[in-house]
Amino acid sequence: MISQFETTARLLITCPDRPGIVSAVTTFLYHHGANVTELDQYSTDPTGGRFFMRLEFQTPHLDVSRATLKQAFGDVVGQRFEMDWRISFAADKPRMGILVSKHDHALMDLLWRWQRGELRVDIPLVISNHPDLREAVERFGVRFEHVPVDAATHAESEARMLSLLEGQADFIVLARYMRILSAGFVARYPHRIINIHHSFLPAFIGADPYKQAYERGVKLIGATAHYVTSELDQGPIIEQDTGRVSHRQAVPELRHLGRDLERQVLARAVRWHAEDRIIVDGNKTIVFA
Amino acid sequence: MISQFETTARLLITCPDRPGIVSAVTTFLYHHGANVTELDQYSTDPTGGRFFMRLEFQTPHLDVSRATLKQAFGDVVGQRFEMDWRISFAADKPRMGILVSKHDHALMDLLWRWQRGELRVDIPLVISNHPDLREAVERFGVRFEHVPVDAATHAESEARMLSLLEGQADFIVLARYMRILSAGFVARYPHRIINIHHSFLPAFIGADPYKQAYERGVKLIGATAHYVTSELDQGPIIEQDTGRVSHRQAVPELRHLGRDLERQVLARAVRWHAEDRIIVDGNKTIVFA
Amino acid sequence: MISQFETTARLLITCPDRPGIVSAVTTFLYHHGANVTELDQYSTDPTGGRFFMRLEFQTPHLDVSRATLKQAFGDVVGQRFEMDWRISFAADKPRMGILVSKHDHALMDLLWRWQRGELRVDIPLVISNHPDLREAVERFGVRFEHVPVDAATHAESEARMLSLLEGQADFIVLARYMRILSAGFVARYPHRIINIHHSFLPAFIGADPYKQAYERGVKLIGATAHYVTSELDQGPIIEQDTGRVSHRQAVPELRHLGRDLERQVLARAVRWHAEDRIIVDGNKTIVFA
Amino acid sequence: MISQFETTARLLITCPDRPGIVSAVTTFLYHHGANVTELDQYSTDPTGGRFFMRLEFQTPHLDVSRATLKQAFGDVVGQRFEMDWRISFAADKPRMGILVSKHDHALMDLLWRWQRGELRVDIPLVISNHPDLREAVERFGVRFEHVPVDAATHAESEARMLSLLEGQADFIVLARYMRILSAGFVARYPHRIINIHHSFLPAFIGADPYKQAYERGVKLIGATAHYVTSELDQGPIIEQDTGRVSHRQAVPELRHLGRDLERQVLARAVRWHAEDRIIVDGNKTIVFA
Repeated sequence: MISQFETTARLLITCPDRPGIVSAVTTFLYHHGANVTELDQYSTDPTGGRFFMRLEFQTPHLDVSRATLKQAFGDVVGQRFEMDWRISFAADKPRMGILVSKHDHALMDLLWRWQRGELRVDIPLVISNHPDLREAVERFGVRFEHVPVDAATHAESEARMLSLLEGQADFIVLARYMRILSAGFVARYPHRIINIHHSFLPAFIGADPYKQAYERGVKLIGATAHYVTSELDQGPIIEQDTGRVSHRQAVPELRHLGRDLERQVLARAVRWHAEDRIIVDGNKTIVFA
Repeated sequence: MISQFETTARLLITCPDRPGIVSAVTTFLYHHGANVTELDQYSTDPTGGRFFMRLEFQTPHLDVSRATLKQAFGDVVGQRFEMDWRISFAADKPRMGILVSKHDHALMDLLWRWQRGELRVDIPLVISNHPDLREAVERFGVRFEHVPVDAATHAESEARMLSLLEGQADFIVLARYMRILSAGFVARYPHRIINIHHSFLPAFIGADPYKQAYERGVKLIGATAHYVTSELDQGPIIEQDTGRVSHRQAVPELRHLGRDLERQVLARAVRWHAEDRIIVDGNKTIVFA
Repeated sequence: MISQFETTARLLITCPDRPGIVSAVTTFLYHHGANVTELDQYSTDPTGGRFFMRLEFQTPHLDVSRATLKQAFGDVVGQRFEMDWRISFAADKPRMGILVSKHDHALMDLLWRWQRGELRVDIPLVISNHPDLREAVERFGVRFEHVPVDAATHAESEARMLSLLEGQADFIVLARYMRILSAGFVARYPHRIINIHHSFLPAFIGADPYKQAYERGVKLIGATAHYVTSELDQGPIIEQDTGRVSHRQAVPELRHLGRDLERQVLARAVRWHAEDRIIVDGNKTIVFA
Repeated sequence: MISQFETTARLLITCPDRPGIVSAVTTFLYHHGANVTELDQYSTDPTGGRFFMRLEFQTPHLDVSRATLKQAFGDVVGQRFEMDWRISFAADKPRMGILVSKHDHALMDLLWRWQRGELRVDIPLVISNHPDLREAVERFGVRFEHVPVDAATHAESEARMLSLLEGQADFIVLARYMRILSAGFVARYPHRIINIHHSFLPAFIGADPYKQAYERGVKLIGATAHYVTSELDQGPIIEQDTGRVSHRQAVPELRHLGRDLERQVLARAVRWHAEDRIIVDGNKTIVFA
């Protein structure tokens, strides 16, 4: 479809399924001058299931302000169907904070795609527990903050990071950030922290998955982007991919090959999140890609 | 989604895009007791484009007969928006005729999937220009007709095939049928003949694509399922896939490897056609998979 | 390469790496009139590693009998380099016994490929703990034996199976055999029992992996062929593949989609085993594919 | 395998097949203190075919100089078997010149992989017919030369480029260079100019392949790395890959998605060329990957 970013709005809905929802939603929008240009709907069960919908509409002929539209939608449609819902406007780019350690490939790839306009986000800052990547980040015109983290100062470091992110970032990407975030930190950004894990989860949870993969002798390596929850590597999976390897690749080659998988899987997950294409349902995701 | 085949209906729509279509369609269905359980919509352009939609709904609580529902939809919604539209009921299985020559892998795979219930179609008959596969087909309880075809009798052979298919088959699958159908034959089943071509079209049109692929030294071989039109291998593409090869594979090995691609690509295309997931738009397909 | 099955021999070697091995092996063969047509070699480390090699040679001009060639190779080359080695002749097809329960897709696919000449093996018999597949198997001209297995008679059933296989099967394929073989049974066929597990191992070990996959919300499902050892789903992996799924596929659809993966992964593993392309190294495989 | 770059040498051989070649080659190396650590061999036909081999060996215990080794190999082995052969030493990095126009993704990806040590080459210079990418290139410490090209001055521009490359570059990569090189230019670097074409060749030869792909309605897009010959997009294919698209992706989205394919396909082709893994055989490649 030909994108008209300035005028595109998105509506995401979760609610108990019952007849009449699509009709009510689309009739409401039609009466307010919105033109639906993309709609994807899914129900877990025709009777008694959950209803999920993503919808894009065009706003040039809205008969009310955006704020009024939201207010009215909640009053007229949302309450009636007990919806969790969210309307966003593509022109209001979400703000993405990035946490990174020393491996720069996932970070560089995000910055690069962002610079080319492939990712419609703002990047207020990159935080790292190492100083190494400052120059590479600042070259893109992006703010870099070094927040050292060690066992003794972990709580203070996280507090420092949170104060940097507060009011600045709508969601956070862990672009190979090698420290485990505390449950308290995670709770501040529920389903708004995206991690890239360098394995096909749930295989090879935890440290050094390429080494684990090598030792198990798998014939494919993988990468998984998921939302972070308080349980390590257990959050809702957003996207995964795999690549073929053989006995010839030792751990360093797996790391090389894995970088390409990580970059692509993470980029897709971030784009879907930024375009409001993901609904979290329990510990799973519905992705309207 | 949990499938409820007996009660599922599908609505396919193509029309000029304009505001209010989704609202009108879904409100119509709601008022007649239909519950929408899946909806996929696509517009080529937010202003002045074409509108395409596929929708599944449940029929247990319809307040009118199926025939009346269709009649009313045409009168109330279809005409208003200048729609090409089609309502089908999953319980009314489409009837699939199969044409085949000597290679049996695509045919066997279709019969097998059908026997397991993966393909919701009836198979009234298989026609072949060779007698070889009679036993293999009849073993599945499917009628087999041998219609010899040669240059001199081509027109008569086609007439014989058409008389066998007439009133028996809603669509036709060429499961490695090695004769070119005449324009007249094709015109009787517009966008209702599916062919599997053993290359990644538009590369290697025509005869012996694996030989062509070998001679060009490609590193991937492919398979393409497409609707047959009067131009050889030029019809709307439904599905494609590729598989990796190397210098070590000569033509016979390419044929072996290609069989797996052909079987899977054809099976997907047939399933999508049988489930009314495909809209032909010019020389392309919209596939709501 | 143009295959000349009747005259092709294969040599598989594992030994400590040191200079001169390839030279000694190929010079030995050359002096006995063998022509090397394919050679693949791999060392884990240039100094102090393990050496692995697979070699195909043509036998029409051998100056000694096959038996003498083997004897001489062991005396002249094998002992000198402390080799584990094996020479086989393509014309001597390995005999493959198959164990199956009720799911027939993996079994049918093997029989089908075998019938077409894609798998160069003999199939002396298929054993099942259910009687259901008798007719489907016998239709291929293959012997079928029903050996019921329940908890109380497990030992006797295994004894019965072993007596059926003894002297008949060189290796065994578990084509969705849903019973766990005892350590004693497995020990009789070390690295000669191939299982197809319907997940991307090591994810989803054990029962009903598609259900496990669904519940974890993965975006890819997988299949793994591996040699059976006494530890469940822990043996050396031969081959794996994955396929994309989404939130729309519930467990039954995952099973459908998974069948295609299982069939292909198992077929590749069996072919490689039958063509002597696999060396087991600890709990991993070297596959010269 | 654990890489020992400083001490690794590679030998590439093409010759008429006949018995004794592997034995002669490996015995020669063994007698001069070389330890073979990887060997891959392939014959087109067991009788009367062509023989191809790639071999890696370790040099720490060579009993002669590298120059003498080459001289002796040619005299003792090469002539006897009428070989085309080449010995290279991994420590002598090949020098890669890059030509680019305005699209920077393929270029940036190469520079990036080079900076991380994934590509073992030197990059003496990047030449562009546009000035735009100077800063991006120089940031990597690589020389950038702007050589404007227009129809009137094409010959002079090529002469200028050749004089810049002469003695500086062992091979050339066209990282989305949008001008057609003259036959004269190409003849200076036979099988040493690698181009990335943004389609699955031979489909969509020539200009704007993504537009051609969109118009044909393919379900996969592709990328092809090939050696440049005097016929446009007809040279020997080194590597290809494809990615899935749907009716939803218009030409701009195909371009976005295609970038990832182009980057990866080109990177693999360049790495294989740099590691002497490719033999050109007529209009095809043998890739010992």
